[in-house]
Amino acid sequence: MDNLAKKLEEFKEYNRKIEYLNSASSVLYWDMRVGIPSKGVAYRGEVLAFLSGETYKLQTSSTMEEYIKYFEGKNLDTINTSMVQRAKKNYNLTKKIPEKRYIEYVELTSNSEIAWQEAKEKSDFSIFKPYLEKIVDFNREFINYWGYEVNKYDTLLDFYEPGITVEKLDKVFTELRSAIVVLLEKIKKSSVSPRTDYFNENFSKVSQESFSKYILEKMGFDFEKGRLDESVHPFTIEFSNKDVRITTNYHEDDFRSALFGTIHEGGHAIYEQAIDDNLKGTLLGSGASMGIHESQSRFYENIIGRSKEFWTYFYIEAQKRFPQFKGVTLEEFYKGINHVEPSLVRIEADELTYSLHIIIRYEIEKALINGEIEVTDLPRIWGEKYKEYLGVEPKNDSEGVLQDTHWAGGSFGYFPSYALGNLYGAQFLNKMLKDIPDSFERIANGDLKFLQAWLKDNIHNYGAVYKPSEIIKKVTGEELTAKYFIEYLNKKYSEIYNI
Amino acid sequence: MDNLAKKLEEFKEYNRKIEYLNSASSVLYWDMRVGIPSKGVAYRGEVLAFLSGETYKLQTSSTMEEYIKYFEGKNLDTINTSMVQRAKKNYNLTKKIPEKRYIEYVELTSNSEIAWQEAKEKSDFSIFKPYLEKIVDFNREFINYWGYEVNKYDTLLDFYEPGITVEKLDKVFTELRSAIVVLLEKIKKSSVSPRTDYFNENFSKVSQESFSKYILEKMGFDFEKGRLDESVHPFTIEFSNKDVRITTNYHEDDFRSALFGTIHEGGHAIYEQAIDDNLKGTLLGSGASMGIHESQSRFYENIIGRSKEFWTYFYIEAQKRFPQFKGVTLEEFYKGINHVEPSLVRIEADELTYSLHIIIRYEIEKALINGEIEVTDLPRIWGEKYKEYLGVEPKNDSEGVLQDTHWAGGSFGYFPSYALGNLYGAQFLNKMLKDIPDSFERIANGDLKFLQAWLKDNIHNYGAVYKPSEIIKKVTGEELTAKYFIEYLNKKYSEIYNI
Repeated sequence: MDNLAKKLEEFKEYNRKIEYLNSASSVLYWDMRVGIPSKGVAYRGEVLAFLSGETYKLQTSSTMEEYIKYFEGKNLDTINTSMVQRAKKNYNLTKKIPEKRYIEYVELTSNSEIAWQEAKEKSDFSIFKPYLEKIVDFNREFINYWGYEVNKYDTLLDFYEPGITVEKLDKVFTELRSAIVVLLEKIKKSSVSPRTDYFNENFSKVSQESFSKYILEKMGFDFEKGRLDESVHPFTIEFSNKDVRITTNYHEDDFRSALFGTIHEGGHAIYEQAIDDNLKGTLLGSGASMGIHESQSRFYENIIGRSKEFWTYFYIEAQKRFPQFKGVTLEEFYKGINHVEPSLVRIEADELTYSLHIIIRYEIEKALINGEIEVTDLPRIWGEKYKEYLGVEPKNDSEGVLQDTHWAGGSFGYFPSYALGNLYGAQFLNKMLKDIPDSFERIANGDLKFLQAWLKDNIHNYGAVYKPSEIIKKVTGEELTAKYFIEYLNKKYSEIYNI
Repeated sequence: MDNLAKKLEEFKEYNRKIEYLNSASSVLYWDMRVGIPSKGVAYRGEVLAFLSGETYKLQTSSTMEEYIKYFEGKNLDTINTSMVQRAKKNYNLTKKIPEKRYIEYVELTSNSEIAWQEAKEKSDFSIFKPYLEKIVDFNREFINYWGYEVNKYDTLLDFYEPGITVEKLDKVFTELRSAIVVLLEKIKKSSVSPRTDYFNENFSKVSQESFSKYILEKMGFDFEKGRLDESVHPFTIEFSNKDVRITTNYHEDDFRSALFGTIHEGGHAIYEQAIDDNLKGTLLGSGASMGIHESQSRFYENIIGRSKEFWTYFYIEAQKRFPQFKGVTLEEFYKGINHVEPSLVRIEADELTYSLHIIIRYEIEKALINGEIEVTDLPRIWGEKYKEYLGVEPKNDSEGVLQDTHWAGGSFGYFPSYALGNLYGAQFLNKMLKDIPDSFERIANGDLKFLQAWLKDNIHNYGAVYKPSEIIKKVTGEELTAKYFIEYLNKKYSEIYNI
């Protein structure tokens, strides 16, 4: 082994420690969200803060600095180049923040999520407000350490979607919003009004859980490499590519909520489970970006999971399991799950209006981070924007500003990924149909495995080796565009609403 | 704050890191036993090995050495003296083992437990054998590093019960064994033969779980500071004194198994939940020793949980919940749960013969560690001893040599603690009845809280500040003796069996 190869092995050994700490933190975090007894939370926050501190030390050590310097200018292959870039990015990002502040922030976000949970349960923003104020202050402070070029919010966007800026998002979101508004207007005038009443009969948790697991298995989720559990807000977390867990939240009075939530998280999990074993120690053994991740989850949830072909196969099983669907035709069911109705809660929004929920959050975050509005204004602004964009108004904080956990975890800049995921997903679909023209016929026969294989070969197994823009180009041959998603929406809803 | 006080604070800050790592490891370990997907196990082993390595570094660092040297000869209060002694003991124990070997051992035991689980399920000792051989070799190797005076096995005993030796155990166990044998002979000749058939009707898991939780609550187990889950082998683990978890294993065809298992683990958990908050950072924030811990679990399980007074109160509730007990009188039920019958499985053994199971394991471990027998001989020797001591013989490995998880975790020297727990427990009972003469009248009225309070004041809240011998002396005024336990057994079984 030559010197360079030896040094690369050493570096991977070093990186594995960071990965071990992240894996341990993830287990502690998962447990805190899924099963911790209430009085155990405070100490758990301390332990998580300690582990983050240890990660911080490894990411910013002089050893790390030496590795990065050593590899700069060296002739490395794709994976190793990407590994060094990732390490350098982490180094710069964390090195610029004083360690003490970093640890305080991790502890704060850990406690904030519990406060958010209580606030949401009691529908009282004031419980969460002091935490959120601190989190926003931290983010503003951190941006000063990191620096920014055009817009402060760009710095946060770059974490989740390298290369995405306010300028680009403003443009894409304007295009998307216009298209949705036109469609919504047409739908309002349509005489088609799908029945959805049968979704709100009583569906026992046990039967929903069983059906969710059945669908996950058909999707290719490997239960020997993962679990399905319950939590207030659904999420996916990986401890390694061989232990990827998802959670869902069962509503006995709505069949759709847990089902599509599970398919969504299942899309994330299938991604993580398929990442190549060889990426251990490279820091690249997880999804490429939040947007690419959301492209996978929303691809499964909507493009596949709300397609007529999907239910051509699965509705037979659903009818067997749920007598509530007796007398409801496949056509009615299909229209029911694609019923468009502006509503208050993002995760239960229909596929069409969903992006408007994202645009609201994007605008609020952008203004908050740039100091144009303050946390105390949020419930009011939230209400105003929902009224303006969607024509609905929250009755309380729980169904309004408190509905999402993201801000409690400090995730500013994350929300736009969901809408980007829609755009990427439609681009992937367009390419997949070129590669496998009979995709939807296969789906109608209950075959989802070919999908998983196509996604694995094209996207999943590479983990974070390629940047989002590289993946899009590599897979589809084109740059990011809203064109395919808008085409997809127009085609789908024209048919359903006969417009 | 003077220099000494300042140094003590610094030391506690340092120790807290060790405690954080232990807490994190415990969460990962609990999750591995309760819910990990099968393919996630190997990586989890790596993460646990990494965390153990970090603990090792902190316990054996030059910083630790300096702290220990600094405090030696200083005038410290009880808690701080005990803290420094504990740190010094850990330092010596781990410093003498090469770090690499230590990490390998932790990884081995982590994988061994999974192998043991598979071996037990398949009832095939050969699956577990190569792991156990390595574990025994490691222990023999480690004893060479640590050194020993009279008997190699003494070194391992000292981990779990400081001060206990083969010489002392041989003596106490001989005394105990004689007493049990005499009683067993009398019982054999007794015409009393309690019914137990009703315990083996079908008891649904759900109803057992609900009853277990009900009893735990009455015992004072705080569900805001803990959980009850399922695992193959029941255990208790603490992440802090505010997050103490127990597991049990439900057998639908035996009412007793999960119930008394839960009461047993509940006794451990109540101990950990009551440890003083101020012991954070002292390394003393857990039970004093395995023997003292077992005294608490077995006190609740047997002395209280199998007393007539306990069921005078709880049998009414049991009859309400379980129609299987219709027509079974309290007297019959009481005799049923105390039915003596030599059997194969330790954790399901009756209170009287239980100690014989321990003596068998003690003798095997002693011989194994001293190289007088080898792992390959275990199934044979196990069978021979069971035949000789208990008159029963295992049909397969699962109900024989594979029944306990202890060896898979590397816990040699642990088993004697169970029998010591019996002796300590009877000594505590004797003193409690002097302090609170109407204890059993209170229990018959459903009051268990006074028990918890007495144990907390006398034992629990001190954590590991005092050594086992100090606690026994401090609480009862006497040294360890088998006298009270033998008296207790004689009295109880004379009444039940009319002998």
